[in-house]
Amino acid sequence: MFTLFKRVLIGQPLKSKDLGEQKLNKTKALAILSSDALSSVAYGPEQILLVLMALGAVAYWLSIPIAIGILVLLVALVLSYRQIIFAYPHGGGAYVVSKENLGVNSGLLAGGALLVDYILTVAVSISAGTDAITSAFPSLHGYNVLIACLLVILITILNLRGLTESASVLAYPVYLFVAILFLTIAVGLYKVLTGQISPELHTSFGTPIAGLSLFLLLRAFASGSSALTGVEAISNAIPNFKSPAPNNAAKTLAAMGILLAILFSGIVFLAYYYGISPKVEETVVSQIASATFGRGVMYYIIQGITAMILVLAANTGYSAFPLLAVNLAKDKYIARMFTVRGDRLGYSNGILFLATASILLIIMFKGQTEHLIPLYAVGVFIPFTLAQTGMLVKWLREKPAGWRFKLTINAIGAAISFLVMMIFFITKFPQVWPVLIFLPLIVLFFRSIHKHYEDVGDQLRISSCEPHKPIEGNVFIIPVAGITHVVENTLNYAKSLHPDQIIAVYVAFDKESEKAFEEKWSHWQPDVRLVTLYSQYRSIIQPLTKFVDTVEYKAKESNFQVTVLIPQFIPKKQWHNALHNQSSLLIRAFLLYRRDLIVTTVPYHFKK
Amino acid sequence: MFTLFKRVLIGQPLKSKDLGEQKLNKTKALAILSSDALSSVAYGPEQILLVLMALGAVAYWLSIPIAIGILVLLVALVLSYRQIIFAYPHGGGAYVVSKENLGVNSGLLAGGALLVDYILTVAVSISAGTDAITSAFPSLHGYNVLIACLLVILITILNLRGLTESASVLAYPVYLFVAILFLTIAVGLYKVLTGQISPELHTSFGTPIAGLSLFLLLRAFASGSSALTGVEAISNAIPNFKSPAPNNAAKTLAAMGILLAILFSGIVFLAYYYGISPKVEETVVSQIASATFGRGVMYYIIQGITAMILVLAANTGYSAFPLLAVNLAKDKYIARMFTVRGDRLGYSNGILFLATASILLIIMFKGQTEHLIPLYAVGVFIPFTLAQTGMLVKWLREKPAGWRFKLTINAIGAAISFLVMMIFFITKFPQVWPVLIFLPLIVLFFRSIHKHYEDVGDQLRISSCEPHKPIEGNVFIIPVAGITHVVENTLNYAKSLHPDQIIAVYVAFDKESEKAFEEKWSHWQPDVRLVTLYSQYRSIIQPLTKFVDTVEYKAKESNFQVTVLIPQFIPKKQWHNALHNQSSLLIRAFLLYRRDLIVTTVPYHFKK
Repeated sequence: MFTLFKRVLIGQPLKSKDLGEQKLNKTKALAILSSDALSSVAYGPEQILLVLMALGAVAYWLSIPIAIGILVLLVALVLSYRQIIFAYPHGGGAYVVSKENLGVNSGLLAGGALLVDYILTVAVSISAGTDAITSAFPSLHGYNVLIACLLVILITILNLRGLTESASVLAYPVYLFVAILFLTIAVGLYKVLTGQISPELHTSFGTPIAGLSLFLLLRAFASGSSALTGVEAISNAIPNFKSPAPNNAAKTLAAMGILLAILFSGIVFLAYYYGISPKVEETVVSQIASATFGRGVMYYIIQGITAMILVLAANTGYSAFPLLAVNLAKDKYIARMFTVRGDRLGYSNGILFLATASILLIIMFKGQTEHLIPLYAVGVFIPFTLAQTGMLVKWLREKPAGWRFKLTINAIGAAISFLVMMIFFITKFPQVWPVLIFLPLIVLFFRSIHKHYEDVGDQLRISSCEPHKPIEGNVFIIPVAGITHVVENTLNYAKSLHPDQIIAVYVAFDKESEKAFEEKWSHWQPDVRLVTLYSQYRSIIQPLTKFVDTVEYKAKESNFQVTVLIPQFIPKKQWHNALHNQSSLLIRAFLLYRRDLIVTTVPYHFKK
Repeated sequence: MFTLFKRVLIGQPLKSKDLGEQKLNKTKALAILSSDALSSVAYGPEQILLVLMALGAVAYWLSIPIAIGILVLLVALVLSYRQIIFAYPHGGGAYVVSKENLGVNSGLLAGGALLVDYILTVAVSISAGTDAITSAFPSLHGYNVLIACLLVILITILNLRGLTESASVLAYPVYLFVAILFLTIAVGLYKVLTGQISPELHTSFGTPIAGLSLFLLLRAFASGSSALTGVEAISNAIPNFKSPAPNNAAKTLAAMGILLAILFSGIVFLAYYYGISPKVEETVVSQIASATFGRGVMYYIIQGITAMILVLAANTGYSAFPLLAVNLAKDKYIARMFTVRGDRLGYSNGILFLATASILLIIMFKGQTEHLIPLYAVGVFIPFTLAQTGMLVKWLREKPAGWRFKLTINAIGAAISFLVMMIFFITKFPQVWPVLIFLPLIVLFFRSIHKHYEDVGDQLRISSCEPHKPIEGNVFIIPVAGITHVVENTLNYAKSLHPDQIIAVYVAFDKESEKAFEEKWSHWQPDVRLVTLYSQYRSIIQPLTKFVDTVEYKAKESNFQVTVLIPQFIPKKQWHNALHNQSSLLIRAFLLYRRDLIVTTVPYHFKK
């Protein structure tokens, strides 16, 4: 049943040797690795306006200087990551850079923050994509959470089937998105320049604002910087580029930075000039699109492509999370199961974990993008800061040619990232405090897993061998519940192995049945020693384990090994199991955790 | 943890020999066995009025003739059950009577109906008890379902601790209830006779009613007969009476009938005379009490005692269900686990099953008594009818002295019960149709369980013996995952038993590791044969089972027994299990269901 269902859903299993790596050219790489960053413009500008709204529409002109600040931050980040690309041509990523330069704990902090972040990438992108859909079709507005969860499930199934980053089909929507936003911005600007948009709609630049505080300004800046999430993606994926990989990656990063800067500035400017106010039921991009083109075909195309690219951005979470999980698992910081490839060669455990976690987040936050974004953004700027600081340390330590210049760039990057992170903590503390609790817990968890795996390794290694105990004889204990074929079957097997002793044990609940059983046994199996135990509390496990412990204790003295043979009948149909007491399962479960006891299940299959 | 929790909740386990039987004298028996029947007057009269309400308050005088009809039914049932008491002094009950006289299917139908009914007894009584509480404290009205569920849990815990039918403490509330209702009725009648109650409140007897139909009249009659649920309880419990048991039981039954008749008539009359209309948020008994005594201390005492006796009535479900379940389980119609006594000597599986099912019902029906009662009542009249018909057949077959008279009584009983049942089906079909689907399914289910147990018995019995296969040699297969202490431990054990052959099996996911492992193995264990399997789909189970099947096939030819020894390491802490792949568990689960294969788990306990 389950197998069939799985086949239909994700397809036939693939052979290991089918695993091939396809290298990306720049055009494709730009499309695939930028969907996360570029799609951020669909919600980033809106976040600025949401904060400014507190001051009234009069404050919207502030979005322009704030946007300029964010562009500066973008330049700093792009330049810093460019250096990471050349320094770690095998795929840096905050985890590797921090671990190598700042020590294990920083690496784990970055790794943990990134894992959480990829989950948030999925939750945020899918929620924002759902917003784009429900903006276009307001009647769907009540079903946001449901639609978001269905989208996550869909994208999960596609990834389990093995939709890899290299699928060409994923490249088109990104370029379409860029093209259509360019068009929107161009048409918008044309309308502005030809005076088709009333200048009355917006307050003029520099209008004084009552109640303005540095706090609010910083808060708006921090919120807007969520548009920069995703810029690190290229530096993690250098090995996927065609050679010379670092050069190509650096060029792609630059191209992405330029595209992002243009789209972000254009949207912020149009939103300002159109005098757009954020609404719960319609996104800012949707408002710009309908103000520019009216609610016609063009509008629906824009919304559709925006939704699509946001879903694709979620997909970058699906590529990045399992890979980082594999890295952490190989370093023994998370469970080994994340390194196992599924039927279709994807890291299915990572994919499923990511899907479950992001669905939980979407449900917890009721699919409200603006509540998820602060967590997401702060989570992004922690690894940003750690990676830049790591680079700083690296330059200081290695001092290669021109290190002063490199150091300066990374120092600026680190300082700005750190500043943004602190602004987040200060201005959005009520929303981001959980990060301060969860991240240290995650690091602790990583470390305790690591310790366990190290311990296991030590104990398995043959070289570290404690001299093993010799086994000089065998004692078999067979719990019996009656005189039946099931017991007979087990006795035959036990005898065929010629152990030094076979002991049958019967647990009686009253004295009469104890007597009666002893009587019957002595006729049936006179050569097998029977021990009867009287259980006044009607428990089989308790007297049995006590007896086994006693035998075990004695056997140890002469280096004998004790094995318990459990007769178990296996019914023909699964549901029949519910009709039997399952004592054999219980006995096995209890005995297996006793020291130095071996448990054998001797099944007897029913034929009807 | 669980054990400790269990200890606190239900107490220390008791020894089997502590099980004693206490015989009941008539006074105590009346109290304990009648709580179900007597408490029915708390909701029975209300059900009549609920139906008449459709015709308007003008129709309430009809409750008097309907009540007379129900009293006739009561007399017929009491007389009929009196005969069952003498005919089945060991405790008849509809299941036994029907099975012996009408055949297995009828018996199972009666048994199934009764099981369902005891669940409904609990659900209805607890819901009605909750109504009594929320009538007194209207602010609790929104919490009906919660209160009802908590009451079920409370009574379940008490029963798991071993609150038996014989607890004297249970007798007092019943007599208190009878006494206080007598007092209410007496005071009410006094007020009526002294003219303190305005005769304007009720429409006079015989007022013509627009829209009256036979259908509605029958429906009201059927609804009111829910006051008779529980009269069968005494006939099921005869062995608990002091000797001469049947005589004492018959006298108790008569006393109960008289009490029930008086209470029922009194409440119906007062409700009519006071002109009481059923309300959602206040029960009829509550209205009578507040009309008679005002909302003073007396009122709250009445409500409290009513709630208490309704909870006690639920308790009769807790005595009856597990006992009937034991009878059915002994006859092999339901799972054997119902015959097992728990730590405190109660049949805990039955108790827990009953509790779960009734909580589900309460939640499904949102604790609305009037929606549960039709199902309950129809479920009661099915076994009534079957039992009476069974007696009829018995008299016809056995023809003892005076059989014509006995036959007449049971025939009348059977006819009336059948009539009431049919009235239920006809007038309340939209509410009771599920019974027509579920009861046949339950009977079918009983039979298929029976067949399974019979099959098992046949296959276990040594006498029916197919000649057993001799075991002429042993082959051990050991799946190995590496060169570790865990594997070494298993190999040592295998060697100590001197089987004819030991085969180690290694599943490789790529050709290089296959080669490398063979190399290492030949140095480490040159005397143990190693077979390596190459798995291109990264599955361990599949190639392993295929290999084991091949070995098994060959071994069979020379009567060799194949055993698979699974090396399994046991981590020190439970949560560590999540960090390992659990291949050994999977392998075991798959292999155990293969024919004629024995599976041994060789644990290796980690020390850290």
